[in-house]
Amino acid sequence: MPIRIAVAGASGYAGGELLRLLLGHPEIEIGALTGASNAGQPLGVLQPHLVPLAERVLVETSLETLRGHDVVFLALPHGQSGELAAQLGDATVVIDCGADFRLADPAVWERFYGGSHAGTWPYGLPELPGQRDALRGANRVAVPGCYPTIATLTLAPAVAAGVVEPDVTVVAASGTSGAGKAAKPHLLGSEVMGNASAYGVGGVHRHTPEITQSLSRLTEDAVRVSFTPLLVPMPRGILATCSARLTADLSADEAYDIYAKAYADEPFVHLLPQGQWPQTKSVTGSNSVHLQVTVDEDARRMVAVGAVDNLSKGTAGAAVQCMNLALGLDEGLGLSTVGVAP
Amino acid sequence: MPIRIAVAGASGYAGGELLRLLLGHPEIEIGALTGASNAGQPLGVLQPHLVPLAERVLVETSLETLRGHDVVFLALPHGQSGELAAQLGDATVVIDCGADFRLADPAVWERFYGGSHAGTWPYGLPELPGQRDALRGANRVAVPGCYPTIATLTLAPAVAAGVVEPDVTVVAASGTSGAGKAAKPHLLGSEVMGNASAYGVGGVHRHTPEITQSLSRLTEDAVRVSFTPLLVPMPRGILATCSARLTADLSADEAYDIYAKAYADEPFVHLLPQGQWPQTKSVTGSNSVHLQVTVDEDARRMVAVGAVDNLSKGTAGAAVQCMNLALGLDEGLGLSTVGVAP
Amino acid sequence: MPIRIAVAGASGYAGGELLRLLLGHPEIEIGALTGASNAGQPLGVLQPHLVPLAERVLVETSLETLRGHDVVFLALPHGQSGELAAQLGDATVVIDCGADFRLADPAVWERFYGGSHAGTWPYGLPELPGQRDALRGANRVAVPGCYPTIATLTLAPAVAAGVVEPDVTVVAASGTSGAGKAAKPHLLGSEVMGNASAYGVGGVHRHTPEITQSLSRLTEDAVRVSFTPLLVPMPRGILATCSARLTADLSADEAYDIYAKAYADEPFVHLLPQGQWPQTKSVTGSNSVHLQVTVDEDARRMVAVGAVDNLSKGTAGAAVQCMNLALGLDEGLGLSTVGVAP
Amino acid sequence: MPIRIAVAGASGYAGGELLRLLLGHPEIEIGALTGASNAGQPLGVLQPHLVPLAERVLVETSLETLRGHDVVFLALPHGQSGELAAQLGDATVVIDCGADFRLADPAVWERFYGGSHAGTWPYGLPELPGQRDALRGANRVAVPGCYPTIATLTLAPAVAAGVVEPDVTVVAASGTSGAGKAAKPHLLGSEVMGNASAYGVGGVHRHTPEITQSLSRLTEDAVRVSFTPLLVPMPRGILATCSARLTADLSADEAYDIYAKAYADEPFVHLLPQGQWPQTKSVTGSNSVHLQVTVDEDARRMVAVGAVDNLSKGTAGAAVQCMNLALGLDEGLGLSTVGVAP
Repeated sequence: MPIRIAVAGASGYAGGELLRLLLGHPEIEIGALTGASNAGQPLGVLQPHLVPLAERVLVETSLETLRGHDVVFLALPHGQSGELAAQLGDATVVIDCGADFRLADPAVWERFYGGSHAGTWPYGLPELPGQRDALRGANRVAVPGCYPTIATLTLAPAVAAGVVEPDVTVVAASGTSGAGKAAKPHLLGSEVMGNASAYGVGGVHRHTPEITQSLSRLTEDAVRVSFTPLLVPMPRGILATCSARLTADLSADEAYDIYAKAYADEPFVHLLPQGQWPQTKSVTGSNSVHLQVTVDEDARRMVAVGAVDNLSKGTAGAAVQCMNLALGLDEGLGLSTVGVAP
Repeated sequence: MPIRIAVAGASGYAGGELLRLLLGHPEIEIGALTGASNAGQPLGVLQPHLVPLAERVLVETSLETLRGHDVVFLALPHGQSGELAAQLGDATVVIDCGADFRLADPAVWERFYGGSHAGTWPYGLPELPGQRDALRGANRVAVPGCYPTIATLTLAPAVAAGVVEPDVTVVAASGTSGAGKAAKPHLLGSEVMGNASAYGVGGVHRHTPEITQSLSRLTEDAVRVSFTPLLVPMPRGILATCSARLTADLSADEAYDIYAKAYADEPFVHLLPQGQWPQTKSVTGSNSVHLQVTVDEDARRMVAVGAVDNLSKGTAGAAVQCMNLALGLDEGLGLSTVGVAP
Repeated sequence: MPIRIAVAGASGYAGGELLRLLLGHPEIEIGALTGASNAGQPLGVLQPHLVPLAERVLVETSLETLRGHDVVFLALPHGQSGELAAQLGDATVVIDCGADFRLADPAVWERFYGGSHAGTWPYGLPELPGQRDALRGANRVAVPGCYPTIATLTLAPAVAAGVVEPDVTVVAASGTSGAGKAAKPHLLGSEVMGNASAYGVGGVHRHTPEITQSLSRLTEDAVRVSFTPLLVPMPRGILATCSARLTADLSADEAYDIYAKAYADEPFVHLLPQGQWPQTKSVTGSNSVHLQVTVDEDARRMVAVGAVDNLSKGTAGAAVQCMNLALGLDEGLGLSTVGVAP
Repeated sequence: MPIRIAVAGASGYAGGELLRLLLGHPEIEIGALTGASNAGQPLGVLQPHLVPLAERVLVETSLETLRGHDVVFLALPHGQSGELAAQLGDATVVIDCGADFRLADPAVWERFYGGSHAGTWPYGLPELPGQRDALRGANRVAVPGCYPTIATLTLAPAVAAGVVEPDVTVVAASGTSGAGKAAKPHLLGSEVMGNASAYGVGGVHRHTPEITQSLSRLTEDAVRVSFTPLLVPMPRGILATCSARLTADLSADEAYDIYAKAYADEPFVHLLPQGQWPQTKSVTGSNSVHLQVTVDEDARRMVAVGAVDNLSKGTAGAAVQCMNLALGLDEGLGLSTVGVAP
């Protein structure tokens, strides 16, 4: 019997990518698709690439439309998941693509998001040490933010190994879909094409504490994170350039070995051959993370670069991967390591 | 037992897209991958998005490396397929993504391509009347050019129905991957970004006679085709704007009905709801063609617009679709109607 | 004494381009800059590229803020220019970048724009026969639409010479800035990058009657225009592909000669050497129009292609050119034929 | 009497931008334009945006073609400037846009470039302390690299003030024109559009020692520089994200004041209002540098971001600015602070 799923927020980019992946998942039946202002519209107008669902009509996001499904994916603005999730009951697997349940510390939540903290769910990054087990059989999952996914995976082996100081810099160039589908002037094509810009500089971006939280779990020290997001002219993809001072002499080969061992068994983390650096296009539409690492001996820093598709492994792919783990399915079902390039 | 395939020209864009699709095809085992100057290099360097094949090393393109496969895909510059195909023998299905076997008239071949005409194979556009049957069980298939695929499908219903004069204009805006992976200055990113240009204007583009040939088979008249290709700043996709004078009064609804009937049973041709116009992004990475049609009463012309991914349904997707037909498999195996957007 | 100008609509793309050009104009002093919802904001936030005006604050668009200037440029949504212009008085030169005063026939205005027709002003395309004289000393000018500018200039010599039938097709690929700075979902960078789409198909785009009007003035016949605008992924530029059936035998050389003669003395129309086709990047930021023409003997059509910067010669550059004519200055003052490339 | 200039390397991107600027310079007469493989071709084919020079034919790069000009600009691959410059004689002002004369330490030159060190010329970054005086009346100028220009200007005030440790990270996202016009597969539009990638990671990019050299002159300590260049999908522009640990408590306001004072009198350095972050599009085609700075109190780092047009202020604009200084002209002649946006 197929697994019946619902997607709350089906008209947005995360919702669209979830549906693209779920249409290729062999065990899934797509149930309710919900929207807010778009309820009543056919999906063919809102997501014309999802041809098999073109005639499906969005319904309101509510307990009534969402209950009765085996799995409910929430792709909603932050602050809207808590109440819905509470009502859905423990028999339903709820996978939240939003931020509501990612952070453990209510004070940090309030500082960065405002409002009261909804709680903390198992964090949907199975590639972190011990995290895969926490996700198996879970009925609630908080999918990581797109920047934290790639920043954490790019830095984790070095931080865990203690070869770098717990004081890291992350500069992450992102495509525009990470900013969502709401029409804002600075996200117009006329503005973003031919343009690179920085935003949320100085530690104020909401993904900063999430990166800090994940990296700090890997070491005894509190990790300090300097995070700068950039907007660059492409629809998808994040390229994260991460560096930190070495704690002791370390060769590029040794750094590479640490990464090779850390991710040897990870199906979706692909350490490139030494000397080949990641590019976002290679992971477009896939669940892959591409990584490379080296040591700058003059600067006495380790430098690692990671690429991810912010919508796929960065959001919807991770959500499907976590659903597979939660339901006891093969972790990679419906997911691909192969990007769409060029 | 899996079907064993080889790809000649695996380092190019068509070869890469073939492999991307074949990696998702349930009946396929990927055999020899060949290249010319790239022989000896691992595919991971040349096509880093094809993670599962990263350690595969390209071999020379030759009879020795290609024979012994059930299916051989040729993704070679024109002029190189004829001799290879002759040597491969009838037991091997050969699917040529190049131009060598598309045209029926040797004089036309010589005028547009020069050199002697290699022959004519079944034309791999199953959506044309009668053509699907010609491809079932074929052991040789000539995959159509990318522009002819979309120009022909966008105009065929109207030409076949006789509602337009046999004198059509096609202006087709293409992404840059159609020009291949050979490094030429005018194809540099610095040149193509922020730039739209015309080339091959005035009927001199080599795809012109192929469009003429296909449309002329649908009507008693020789069809005149004015074809202008444009290069626009995107990696993939073709948007073809086609128009022709009406032969008699025709309403927009009547034109729409002609198209709806013509493609009612086609799994990969998607006529959008009236009023919604195609965009290339909706078909990126998919085997879908999106179409729309209307009538301009002031100008007394029918105007139809079609979108296709030049690499997928425009080349590699069509090749897989034809392979499926040739081998008696489900026509859509390994193919998707769902695009990767945004 | 410098000429004191005001710009109504200084926060939009046309207004920004006007100011960019006027900052380089030797005879100009920039007076009031007005906005609607943006009144009260410094220009540095809205148009950060206009560094010398960064601290200028936008004021309300009103008779009070605009009067007292020698020249007032209106870069407003259509329908807002009529009343303002009437109040400004004949001593002020008013140059309207909007559509209100372009069309001569009130019935056509009402059909395409709705509402009542404001009137007809001298049409700001000095390259049309006789039009330069009409603009010299004018105190009211209607700047042409961006599509009509390039479609008309690309077709005018052939239509005027009678070598083509009065039945033309225009397919024009435009950058996104032509759609303005108002935030709409389909204009988001995530949507337009990697995407080509058609809109306003079938003669319904509001620029259609303007092209028809200008071409019909060049010949005894009413010209039929089939116009299809495309949106392609670049911020600026229009590439117009225009064609029409030949009325008699005409060689490519003869067609070229007709164009060469027609534009021999035009400072901003640049017919490329035969065989070289226009690209939009060559005209970015300039007042130049690049043209090329040929004959397709098989299709019996003339094909001409033109490139223009929709914001510069397509709007703001034309406005400055017309101001120069209106004031009796050198026509090219403050304008350049040199594009910003790559 | 006009100043007669020659450009060696007129077919490349730096040469083209030089000519674009020089065409707008009131004191200049453009003399010889030279190329290597392109000698004999008209500039209209190679640089179609430079309309007034369309019929100029490139000549060979040699002493014969270059001598007899007041100023010679060299826009050549590194290694070619030394011999030419030696032959040109002291009466000719020679401005080298290449790397040959930028570095002071021959050992560093040999490590990063190989071959023998040609020498050291006055460094063409007048915004550095004392540097403007060194350029006034100079007859040899080494124009800085594009990355060093923006990295140095973005970090200089903080390094000079001693408020950060002499251990900085620079992640700079660049448009593709910085890589030049030579056709390489990874620079094809199909590859770079929709793609962000890192290259030259780990301190191996040749611009690293140039940044180190300039920053180290501002402080008593040798500065360590971790520099990572990124390629992002745009033709022009660099956005540099720079950070360093604070040496003591420093507020964002205090950091801003340091920058405001440092650049108060610089005509081409524009510190944005606090809270507004740079974007490359604002400086496209201009000689402006846009900067912003803040303090991340959690990470205990200062973060500064700078934007520059790599071809304009990053190369050709700096060359013109230095020529103006060398000749005793107004420093800003032929240059603009206004970008071409959107």
